[in-house]
Amino acid sequence: MKIEVYAAHSHVSEKELREKSVVVIDTLRATSTIITALANGCNQVLPVEEIEEAMDMRITMKESQVILGGERNTKKLPGFDFGNSPLEYAPENVTGKTLILTTTNGTRAIKKAEQADSVHIGALINGLTVASHLHRTNRDAVLLCSGTHGKFSMEDILTAGYIIYRLQRFGSNPDLQLDDLGLVAVNLYETHKDDLMGALRGTLHFGILHSTGMDDDLEYCLKRDIVRVLPAYRDGRITL
Amino acid sequence: MKIEVYAAHSHVSEKELREKSVVVIDTLRATSTIITALANGCNQVLPVEEIEEAMDMRITMKESQVILGGERNTKKLPGFDFGNSPLEYAPENVTGKTLILTTTNGTRAIKKAEQADSVHIGALINGLTVASHLHRTNRDAVLLCSGTHGKFSMEDILTAGYIIYRLQRFGSNPDLQLDDLGLVAVNLYETHKDDLMGALRGTLHFGILHSTGMDDDLEYCLKRDIVRVLPAYRDGRITL
Repeated sequence: MKIEVYAAHSHVSEKELREKSVVVIDTLRATSTIITALANGCNQVLPVEEIEEAMDMRITMKESQVILGGERNTKKLPGFDFGNSPLEYAPENVTGKTLILTTTNGTRAIKKAEQADSVHIGALINGLTVASHLHRTNRDAVLLCSGTHGKFSMEDILTAGYIIYRLQRFGSNPDLQLDDLGLVAVNLYETHKDDLMGALRGTLHFGILHSTGMDDDLEYCLKRDIVRVLPAYRDGRITL
Repeated sequence: MKIEVYAAHSHVSEKELREKSVVVIDTLRATSTIITALANGCNQVLPVEEIEEAMDMRITMKESQVILGGERNTKKLPGFDFGNSPLEYAPENVTGKTLILTTTNGTRAIKKAEQADSVHIGALINGLTVASHLHRTNRDAVLLCSGTHGKFSMEDILTAGYIIYRLQRFGSNPDLQLDDLGLVAVNLYETHKDDLMGALRGTLHFGILHSTGMDDDLEYCLKRDIVRVLPAYRDGRITL
């Protein structure tokens, strides 16, 4: 079983992801938000790349059943119901609803994997569930980190590292093969597993979220395995 | 002073490197080879991207003064004098000569930086000299790792980490700013600084070189600071 890791969606082509099992990771915060919304009773999440597309989509649907969420560069968008904080997607806000979501990097990574054989949504909050799925299916997989405008994001690599770390501990993966970034990721995770927050001090997203008062988001997104769901993306929709 | 790190030349555009101070890193083995050849008396290295271009270039020059070196996917090229092992570039082979060099990833990374303000050649074997140069010039810089066909190579990230590690220890860099990959690089270096070879076990290039009997190359390229030269690339030529 081979695990490849990419640090940003722009580092890989649609073609290279074709027919692969892909797990998309955008720990701060798109995939943490998607997982949370679905775990809290949201019916489905529709990831869209453009703001206008999201607004047009809402018009075609029954408004009472639809919420619009998203951000650009961490800021909530005008006319949207919610931003990109997972804490906003509480049961009372999402149960029975469709969430149309557009974010700077995460939703783009999901779209990048459109031609993959399967696409699942991963973060630290469901890391063990992701690892357990990969272990069970026992197929080559790609951990596709969203990154930030084509650059490396440490929190996504830590998440990839956590998934690999868990996978290594299922015991019966003698032939688990990792690429160089996979090796670095699990190594980085092991070095920092007792203080993920400390590891992220000095990183870009930590700095942005911390300086804009979103420490609760940071704390939430760095929790491991608090939900046991594995959202899957197919035909434009993310569902459980 | 801001240090950005890229894991592969395909992760950054020529435009993004324009007017930057760039250090190109391809530890296994192109930049280790270039540094070694120049330290051993080679007059200049002409990096070229294509094999045919290298062969054509030799024809236009006085043959006795020119050597042709390079590889594709670690293999020496037919009709070439030498491969991409730094150990081949001993004084008796290179003194007073021009080396035309083409490699899979390293020479391409150098060409990528053609529009940069300055381009220097870095590896572990001259890591301290690179760091000392960056410290002295005190300008924002890019550490451009070559990577492998667009993917992350651990040895290049360890080298970037070593350069940053040294830079942090010059004492008067209170405002040294690192991006996420820079933070990961220095972290990875600190974790493995007592056993770089061990850190590389399991990585792609280690595996290829080890399985083809090139352990001497591995050992050589992982030495730190054995040469004190800083090659610079300008107008198609690399010189000291």
